[in-house]
Amino acid sequence: MTVPGGERASAKPQPVRPTLAVVGATGAVGRVLVDLLATRADVWGEVRLFAGPEGIGTEVQVLGRSEPVRALEPGCFEGVDIALFEAPEDVVEEWAPLAVAAGAVAVDGSSAFRLHPDVPLVVPEINPSAARMRRIGIIAAPRCATLVLTVALAALHAEFGLSQLVVTAALAASGRGRIGVDTLRRQTAEVAGDPTVGTRTGDLRRAVSEQEDDPFEAPLAYNLLPWAGDTTEDGWSSEELGLRNETRKILGLPELPISATCLRVPVVSGHSLTVHAVFEREPDVHRVREILDSSAGVIVYDDPEKGEYPTPADVVGSDPTWVGRVRRSLDEPHGLELFLCGDNLRKGAALNCVQIAELVAAEGQAG
Amino acid sequence: MTVPGGERASAKPQPVRPTLAVVGATGAVGRVLVDLLATRADVWGEVRLFAGPEGIGTEVQVLGRSEPVRALEPGCFEGVDIALFEAPEDVVEEWAPLAVAAGAVAVDGSSAFRLHPDVPLVVPEINPSAARMRRIGIIAAPRCATLVLTVALAALHAEFGLSQLVVTAALAASGRGRIGVDTLRRQTAEVAGDPTVGTRTGDLRRAVSEQEDDPFEAPLAYNLLPWAGDTTEDGWSSEELGLRNETRKILGLPELPISATCLRVPVVSGHSLTVHAVFEREPDVHRVREILDSSAGVIVYDDPEKGEYPTPADVVGSDPTWVGRVRRSLDEPHGLELFLCGDNLRKGAALNCVQIAELVAAEGQAG
Repeated sequence: MTVPGGERASAKPQPVRPTLAVVGATGAVGRVLVDLLATRADVWGEVRLFAGPEGIGTEVQVLGRSEPVRALEPGCFEGVDIALFEAPEDVVEEWAPLAVAAGAVAVDGSSAFRLHPDVPLVVPEINPSAARMRRIGIIAAPRCATLVLTVALAALHAEFGLSQLVVTAALAASGRGRIGVDTLRRQTAEVAGDPTVGTRTGDLRRAVSEQEDDPFEAPLAYNLLPWAGDTTEDGWSSEELGLRNETRKILGLPELPISATCLRVPVVSGHSLTVHAVFEREPDVHRVREILDSSAGVIVYDDPEKGEYPTPADVVGSDPTWVGRVRRSLDEPHGLELFLCGDNLRKGAALNCVQIAELVAAEGQAG
Repeated sequence: MTVPGGERASAKPQPVRPTLAVVGATGAVGRVLVDLLATRADVWGEVRLFAGPEGIGTEVQVLGRSEPVRALEPGCFEGVDIALFEAPEDVVEEWAPLAVAAGAVAVDGSSAFRLHPDVPLVVPEINPSAARMRRIGIIAAPRCATLVLTVALAALHAEFGLSQLVVTAALAASGRGRIGVDTLRRQTAEVAGDPTVGTRTGDLRRAVSEQEDDPFEAPLAYNLLPWAGDTTEDGWSSEELGLRNETRKILGLPELPISATCLRVPVVSGHSLTVHAVFEREPDVHRVREILDSSAGVIVYDDPEKGEYPTPADVVGSDPTWVGRVRRSLDEPHGLELFLCGDNLRKGAALNCVQIAELVAAEGQAG
């Protein structure tokens, strides 16, 4: 971090604005991130954009300027204060340490460093001070489903003491990147004119074309898949284990029992979670609503009799975690049921990384 | 075959085939039911078809014959042995007792009598003998989600002793009848050509047209709704309470703790359930698979590394409950996680009623 400076006691010091790098600026999350910058506090000086081969050479509008998208190359992080990575894990593993070596703080939106013991996993609404504990210069942001979940649960945990979670996460196509959305849109166009598809065994597989880079192993239009992420041992997916382990790390509950199932659903953007939460102390529903209503980044929208509940298509483009269907478990005095929705590309990814970068930038200003 | 010089005394008695009535023969489930009859054992004599005003006067193919669809009217059940009702609750409440008064056994696919203490709730694979305990002449079939769930769980409960369930049910559009499917198809056609819809707040609501009889309170295409059924007290939907109470009744566990959340998803047909089940005895996964593999009406399809898991679009048109994602809960030694899929119109509704009717018909033959 460049420390703004000089000892000119009389003149107001003109802080040097920090330089920001965005790696992966042309991906699904990167694009949202670059657009988001214009809506945030005006703290950044130079913004350098990087991407893989498919993005290099294009120009991207950022903070009202047109910036070229560059390739990562030795020395590219010289002078960078904060480097945001919205890139594949292998890219982050290679380049984030180089950014740190060049003097930058690296903020990683991938899963490369999330569970590294020396890397804080930060949600600014929950554990902002953890961002300072970056022993290897890297700060990680959790996956989108974890964000939607922890933003809603943190304050409830503080009041009632979380003791168990059973979660089903219905993940949108954009969680799989632009190729995920493109595949869903292509398949939807292929089935939209067929008045019978979806009613007989195998007819959906025949109705949608296969393409080599399809990210889903079954049709997603008119369907859902009980699978997201990579395989792991014992039948759990990487999405499910990631959601479990990141939630434990952010909430500081390393032993919290969590059972998660991740589905992929034919929604463009917006993750949805059903949550069965058990607490040490009995969660009064009236008090639960009060706590959620006053939590940063949370909106309660919950009156089913009036048709009021969040849906992923309604919350897309917004930042909060939306909470609906708040109700006490019928057979478990300490149990609570919730339905959560959040935009996986905004708060679920891009915004959280920008907020972390702003935290780090503010340290510099304060210091 | 003509037997020369036939001895009448030695000729096999020719049983009178029972007369079947189908009420609601032109609805989403009724149509599937009528088609199903041709694939089942040849036990029926006359088949009388009834429907509401929209279906009367049409002709429907049943068991290779063309039958007129009639209106319900006084005396219409005279001579009927078994009356199958796939009709709205109010129709069943009025006409099922009249069918019984005319001498028929009524089999009810609606929710009118499911929780009535004198009406057995029957899944032939689980509790066939309960069908004989019809104190008021009516036998009920559970809702489709309950069927998918109980068919998979009954044998596991027998071996390990079920002690808790947390379920998320993703219900297909056809669970809301033909209007549900028509609405999903119309909305899908409206959004299919739009390359941006689903990415900004409110754009999906603007993209789909509203029609007066839409059964969903938000767009279903490219979306999901955390609501199915009617409102009840305390924020639970009728689908969620029905799933809980029917599961308890069928499994004979009136105190079983069950937390259910029902979602409506943009799938034409095929309900999906994520299940977190806790047992009194530790469920060994190898043994769980053995039990499921040998259970009537259950197929295990579970090798995620090879892309093998059930999806609703793959199981539509088939009768079993498909089970995938079998895994032990990581933090709960007696916990088990499952993903279930089943065709809500076949076994989930029509087939189960036909099976119950066959049970009753077999009683007559045996007696």
